Amino acid sequence: MISIHEALDAVLAAVRPLQSEEVLLLQALGRAAAERIVSPEQVPTFANSAMDGFAVAGAELDAGRREFRVVVDIPAGRYVAEPVAPGTAARIMTGAPLPPGADAVVREEVVDLRGDVASFRHPARPGENVRPAGEDVEQGGEALPAGVRLGPRALALLAAVEVEEIRVRRRPRVVVISTGDEIVRGRTPDSNGVAVAGLVAEAGGDPVRRAVGDRREEVEREIARALASSDAVLTIGGASVGERDHVPAALAALGADVRVHGVPMKPGKPFLFAVAGGKPVLGLPGSPSACLVAFEVFARPALLRLAGVARPYRPVVRLPVAEAVSGKPGRARFLWAALEPDGRVRPLGRDAAQVRGPALADALVRLPEDAGDVAAGEEVEAWLLGGA
Amino acid sequence: MISIHEALDAVLAAVRPLQSEEVLLLQALGRAAAERIVSPEQVPTFANSAMDGFAVAGAELDAGRREFRVVVDIPAGRYVAEPVAPGTAARIMTGAPLPPGADAVVREEVVDLRGDVASFRHPARPGENVRPAGEDVEQGGEALPAGVRLGPRALALLAAVEVEEIRVRRRPRVVVISTGDEIVRGRTPDSNGVAVAGLVAEAGGDPVRRAVGDRREEVEREIARALASSDAVLTIGGASVGERDHVPAALAALGADVRVHGVPMKPGKPFLFAVAGGKPVLGLPGSPSACLVAFEVFARPALLRLAGVARPYRPVVRLPVAEAVSGKPGRARFLWAALEPDGRVRPLGRDAAQVRGPALADALVRLPEDAGDVAAGEEVEAWLLGGA
Repeated sequence: MISIHEALDAVLAAVRPLQSEEVLLLQALGRAAAERIVSPEQVPTFANSAMDGFAVAGAELDAGRREFRVVVDIPAGRYVAEPVAPGTAARIMTGAPLPPGADAVVREEVVDLRGDVASFRHPARPGENVRPAGEDVEQGGEALPAGVRLGPRALALLAAVEVEEIRVRRRPRVVVISTGDEIVRGRTPDSNGVAVAGLVAEAGGDPVRRAVGDRREEVEREIARALASSDAVLTIGGASVGERDHVPAALAALGADVRVHGVPMKPGKPFLFAVAGGKPVLGLPGSPSACLVAFEVFARPALLRLAGVARPYRPVVRLPVAEAVSGKPGRARFLWAALEPDGRVRPLGRDAAQVRGPALADALVRLPEDAGDVAAGEEVEAWLLGGA
Repeated sequence: MISIHEALDAVLAAVRPLQSEEVLLLQALGRAAAERIVSPEQVPTFANSAMDGFAVAGAELDAGRREFRVVVDIPAGRYVAEPVAPGTAARIMTGAPLPPGADAVVREEVVDLRGDVASFRHPARPGENVRPAGEDVEQGGEALPAGVRLGPRALALLAAVEVEEIRVRRRPRVVVISTGDEIVRGRTPDSNGVAVAGLVAEAGGDPVRRAVGDRREEVEREIARALASSDAVLTIGGASVGERDHVPAALAALGADVRVHGVPMKPGKPFLFAVAGGKPVLGLPGSPSACLVAFEVFARPALLRLAGVARPYRPVVRLPVAEAVSGKPGRARFLWAALEPDGRVRPLGRDAAQVRGPALADALVRLPEDAGDVAAGEEVEAWLLGGA
């Protein structure tokens, strides 16, 4: 059996970012930049003050002058075109553009103001308390690298440098096929389908849900139909080696190239990955916890890669585990866990193994193949699933 | 000046969860449960097998029997109503319901099967490899506590226990008012408005954006209008004490109760909080980094609380800082930071202070008021902003 890393490599090697398209700024939310974004403007636009204080020419400070006549008041956001003349200063607010001729700001706390005369208690230096134009983003420089997923703060940066259209990757169309007679007949709710479709959308994809019974021909027909209308197919259940596990046989009948079938991990062992008609097919196990672990380990990175995200992984940190975990080495183990206010992770117990664990988890803890028992307080690898 | 904690307490004390409403399962995505959700069904529905193996009556194992005739094959998802008779076993797959009479599963690896006779190599115990019905969620027990924000995995749990309608909190309607003549005139892009509106939506609110110039009467009119149509008002800019800072005067004219004005933090010091007409008004500073820090510290928790989320905070962990940070004690400092693959946080430098830092950050580092210089490798508090 191949390792988890080899399996993930096989998945990621088979998926390429989708085509790019040009969209308006606000339509780019949640999508990945298809190329590095070059800044049409600089930020800050003008050199501006880092403090509330008095703007003067640095050369006069060098020459030892400590008294200036205050001739103008510059609030934030107002540009004053009149240069500061020798011997004069502009009162200036934090963030306000420096007037021509000024290249230092003396902060108000060290200034005595009598009438319109400002006396500086300490010597000041040219450049002091000034944020140069273009310090944050240079004109023609890189605003954002390619492959960044564009959240609200990234869009704000692009708005600030006056980017109006952005080349982003197309959203992946993903068909999610839940298998099982009990689901088609409505005897068992398709809870995995609910979770996986929602997680596809969170990863930037457009999900469509289907259900199919336990007959090889039906599974084959549904996968073929899905391949014709999507960028990726996720099946749920039927991926193992039992008599009702029709996904492998259906893929074989479709001439698919099965590249992964079975991974040394717990839960999630029956995971299957194939390429059919040039498109990825990810076979998730039907057991709820295994389904969602396999989604996190393989499907989410694959979908984010299709969507053009350069680093398609959850944030990973090492955190102390709040209680001992017993187990045997051999397979990587994944545990749904709660992040405690003190920064430790607490595995959600066996009594929450199937559906409560995934529902309540803030993190997915990965114990490597060679880990046996883990003592309370030991640091473990935690994948952070995003909070409230 | 009050402390950050006092300021946040003042904000949270003034906001209560909005009214609740009953919605269909899939419409509850991203919203908070208004009450604890009791499970109409148990999970697992039936006692089921934790292993591929052979299901038998535990009493027979206790009596020492080691050979059984295999009379039926039970795949996952199929319920067999016929009890296992004495001396017989059912071949069973992981997750399949146990037939009546069976209460132990002997895993296939320790069984020799010859024809239809299964011989167990080791003694086995009653209850072995069985997941009892209701182990994960009891019927009538708590599926999820009140105040949980419902993501895809939580919805899957509710689908599994056959919850069809859920009582959730209403989405907060939030008016975001950007102030400044330069924004109204289109000379400066309203990048803060782009970021804040997107972050309001991420926090489960419905944002509406407005812009208003630097006249007190205009600011007053726009805030009054916003209060009439929303659950919360966020203003951007104009909250400090300069001549163009009309938000405090407008709030005074409206008879608002200003409870916070100025907080010992950097950036974000001019933050303002008031209650007007029973509704919260949060005044964010206009400098981009300060605006977004104040949003994280005060506005996001307030909006999540309105939306009914019990723990309205980002996941917080302690992580080593990748490089030294110099600074003076006195005010809490917030630094936009990247989460490195090795689990350290690297502050995004002064050259990214205003718009690139927030855009590229994975985390917001909080250094407490008494922190001075921080050495590389020291652990710092990191608020995780959510990854790709």
